[in-house]
Amino acid sequence: MKKTIGIIGGMGPAATCDLMEKIIALTDASRDQEHIHQIADVNTAIPDRTAAILHGGADPLPEMVKSAKRLEAAGAEILLLPCNTAHYFYDGLASQVTVPLLHMPEETARVLAGRGVRTAGILATDGTVQSGVYGKALARYGIRAAYPSPAMQEQVMRLIYDGVKSRSVPLRDVPVGDILADLRDKGAEVFVLACTELPIAFAELGVRDGCLDPTRVLALAAVRAAGARPTVSDPW
Amino acid sequence: MKKTIGIIGGMGPAATCDLMEKIIALTDASRDQEHIHQIADVNTAIPDRTAAILHGGADPLPEMVKSAKRLEAAGAEILLLPCNTAHYFYDGLASQVTVPLLHMPEETARVLAGRGVRTAGILATDGTVQSGVYGKALARYGIRAAYPSPAMQEQVMRLIYDGVKSRSVPLRDVPVGDILADLRDKGAEVFVLACTELPIAFAELGVRDGCLDPTRVLALAAVRAAGARPTVSDPW
Repeated sequence: MKKTIGIIGGMGPAATCDLMEKIIALTDASRDQEHIHQIADVNTAIPDRTAAILHGGADPLPEMVKSAKRLEAAGAEILLLPCNTAHYFYDGLASQVTVPLLHMPEETARVLAGRGVRTAGILATDGTVQSGVYGKALARYGIRAAYPSPAMQEQVMRLIYDGVKSRSVPLRDVPVGDILADLRDKGAEVFVLACTELPIAFAELGVRDGCLDPTRVLALAAVRAAGARPTVSDPW
Repeated sequence: MKKTIGIIGGMGPAATCDLMEKIIALTDASRDQEHIHQIADVNTAIPDRTAAILHGGADPLPEMVKSAKRLEAAGAEILLLPCNTAHYFYDGLASQVTVPLLHMPEETARVLAGRGVRTAGILATDGTVQSGVYGKALARYGIRAAYPSPAMQEQVMRLIYDGVKSRSVPLRDVPVGDILADLRDKGAEVFVLACTELPIAFAELGVRDGCLDPTRVLALAAVRAAGARPTVSDPW
């Protein structure tokens, strides 16, 4: 009997669907009934995570806890949090639930370590970068985090907020090549798409080389944790 | 305050995500918090609907009711059923819940009537075709349903089950052009993609002309029912 997955979603809404689709694609199933039972709460009442961490915005934890409890009550046996920045609140959230909550940056660090990566470029929100959510997870595996210069970090935020969240700027208007070149200059051997909106943008842009997608890492970890057979052995 | 949408999903899992994404894309929102709260139950324990209707397979209604009650308990104020064939069980399901359950074939018939369509070609499962789920909804608006010949209907089932659900046959191996020509010969002015797996297949194949997507119709109806502002006025 496969376990039921609960998804604390809405951060953003499209990223929640992206995770769900990756779980479906990574499950070895030939009919509907062989897939994993997922329950997704696209809770759009959760306040912006970066605003809370850096600018005194409303605390997102209470709404995240509400979603987690709603999912547990509905039968979720494993919880996922498809928002890298939200992992800043991981301990506060995990302490409020009784089922396992997978840790996306930790799962990602383990995958990077498995490939012998020594320096990983981090593309993420200001909240994730400045709070060190990834830096700390990578450090536990002896991996160094490289971050974009301030001007390039502004472009990463533009890609996330204007390119994906509000769709107010065409993705091609953001100089993604320059961002990656900047990270490469700083020693990055791989690029971690450490905001769940970025794999959506990069897929649309057709940029894949050297990129690791933590949403896909989390999806594969979830398929295994749920007791289903994955279609691949490796998230790269 | 926008209403919370509950999705009775898993029929199939990919179709659930397709509906969620269409709701997101059709909502006029510039940040996460302006989107609609959706809760999706990808209930893969729901038995196959066509098998139940035509071949004495297990009754899907009890599991559909379980999902509906789970979603109501979690706070859903409007329910959606992203499976056309499952609408065969609509009355049994609607009688078990206290919140409105939108009716996808009915919404679709209304859209067709708005365009003055007199004969609509129906691409659907054997269960939907033979039980007349669409035929009855269209008849209420004076629209005639045209169905594929038996050989072409077999190809529609192949596209749904082998092409999308099990991914065991490449979509391009199914003669979609022949299916549409057959329907056109039978008087079809438009093609209704009346199985939620079909808009996924047709999008991947790049076939759009003359097609109406009931998932998109349902998504637009849901955005309006939830009290959000849609990005388009028309689902065509």
